[in-house]
Amino acid sequence: MRIVAFGGGTGLSASLRALRAIPASLDITAIVTVGDNGGSSGRLRLDRGALPPGDLRQALAALADDDPVSRRSADLFQHRFAGTDALAGHPVGNIVLLGLMEQFGDPVVALEHAAAMVRAQGRVLPMCRLPVTLEADIRGGDPARPDDIVTVQGQHEIAVSPGDIEVVRLLPPAPEACPEAVAAVLSADWLLFGPGSWYTSVIPHLLVPELAAAVVKTRAKRLITLNLAAEGETGGLSLADHLGALTRYLPDFRADIVLADGDAVEDPATVGAAARSMGARLALGRLAVGRTVPRHDPPALATALEPLLKAGKA
Amino acid sequence: MRIVAFGGGTGLSASLRALRAIPASLDITAIVTVGDNGGSSGRLRLDRGALPPGDLRQALAALADDDPVSRRSADLFQHRFAGTDALAGHPVGNIVLLGLMEQFGDPVVALEHAAAMVRAQGRVLPMCRLPVTLEADIRGGDPARPDDIVTVQGQHEIAVSPGDIEVVRLLPPAPEACPEAVAAVLSADWLLFGPGSWYTSVIPHLLVPELAAAVVKTRAKRLITLNLAAEGETGGLSLADHLGALTRYLPDFRADIVLADGDAVEDPATVGAAARSMGARLALGRLAVGRTVPRHDPPALATALEPLLKAGKA
Repeated sequence: MRIVAFGGGTGLSASLRALRAIPASLDITAIVTVGDNGGSSGRLRLDRGALPPGDLRQALAALADDDPVSRRSADLFQHRFAGTDALAGHPVGNIVLLGLMEQFGDPVVALEHAAAMVRAQGRVLPMCRLPVTLEADIRGGDPARPDDIVTVQGQHEIAVSPGDIEVVRLLPPAPEACPEAVAAVLSADWLLFGPGSWYTSVIPHLLVPELAAAVVKTRAKRLITLNLAAEGETGGLSLADHLGALTRYLPDFRADIVLADGDAVEDPATVGAAARSMGARLALGRLAVGRTVPRHDPPALATALEPLLKAGKA
Repeated sequence: MRIVAFGGGTGLSASLRALRAIPASLDITAIVTVGDNGGSSGRLRLDRGALPPGDLRQALAALADDDPVSRRSADLFQHRFAGTDALAGHPVGNIVLLGLMEQFGDPVVALEHAAAMVRAQGRVLPMCRLPVTLEADIRGGDPARPDDIVTVQGQHEIAVSPGDIEVVRLLPPAPEACPEAVAAVLSADWLLFGPGSWYTSVIPHLLVPELAAAVVKTRAKRLITLNLAAEGETGGLSLADHLGALTRYLPDFRADIVLADGDAVEDPATVGAAARSMGARLALGRLAVGRTVPRHDPPALATALEPLLKAGKA
């Protein structure tokens, strides 16, 4: 079964680890946003014009094989230099990916080799071969003028801004999709969206025209995993609004299943209606671990996903 | 046949590539100096207290398997970042080794994993687990006082200093040897010394007391490959003097074979006598490529080494 998972950082990693935990033989492709401009990725992007490697590295680490050598290589990729010198803050894997992209001159070839280095059980592709910049109109982005809308550039700046996101855009506005990503979408059995930072990890894919067209055109089924709690950037958004945001940016977006954690859905009727309005049914399960700050638990997510994916395929 | 090759940078790489080119099944261990303080290694050592990784990386790349994935990983290790930013000048493999040494807290375990990453056909060990500093008394080290002896600290500073080296020392003066290196020497069939920068890549091993004792005590045979031409730091040293320098620092040093390039030996009688004085016979062969700046050619070196190693073993 060919599965394509869209996303960015932590949420995509949870999805990929869940897929790895499903005993069925899955052909997994992760399609990763390339808008990050914070931290190590931001510095490498600014200093060396690199495709921001952080989210790509996270996806590779999530797909790494469990044999001891691959596991140690994945741990190496995730090892972040401490201290205050020139290397401080960089995870080794970001520098490895940067080196491979320079060596091969192509991120897809570089990612293929990086995947071999950790014996990744799946493929990692960037949504675009060139970096993009996220831009958002944020109401209350300037706390001194809480009712006004200000425009904020940069994924990092958007993530840390106060206020509520009204609109998110890409710069350049219609970037070229990575053709390998488009091909994966068109030949998939399932597309998985979320969990993750909705505006900066899930929606950006829908703003890449060829990728959005492929999402609509493919014969693959589509499953959306909702977040557990409203985070910073989606503070003003209910879970039903999360679904509405997808169709707002891609009106032809139709889904088959919306998966959510039973404890996180306060109003199943509203969320169920929002799901139905895009053609999907709402499936509730136990997806979370952690009480104070709940997060998706890959084994629990795997248990919930497995029957849904199998039933959808049949 | 268990072979231990001592050295530092380029010369050791030539030896290791030659050993890899010998069709017989060889169990290769490289024992590498850890005194480098120049370039990328010097910065990582200064900024992060790391064991200088450059020479270790070179040895790993020389031992990498020839399959396409391992070859690309070795090329990645050797890829040096260009430019002027914080990463400029660092080969990726130096940063990978640094990360592994931090991850495992032990350079031997780190090198074992790095070896797996390139499927190295042999083992790479540091001569000591902690970095050492080289110090030399150099006659004419200060061009303003060409007859005076000045003390110069640092492998890099020694390498670029004018004048002739009179004495070389390690700081600390009697560093602890890497036990795995001592064990490899004691169980070897052959020890290989040179080619390489004599004072900074070949002699430092003899200044590590436990390693020097093992070199004397082992039942392994010993082969010395002489350099092709006097380089900077050994400008005042004839090829016969190179041999004398070894017994000067380790009086009990006995060898079985001294291998040299026929064209590089201007005075075979003198070199032969120097070899005999340490118990060795002089073997001449064609070892070089390059006319203006000759260097050891691994296939030629392999052709010369193979019968010598086999005859020695029988």
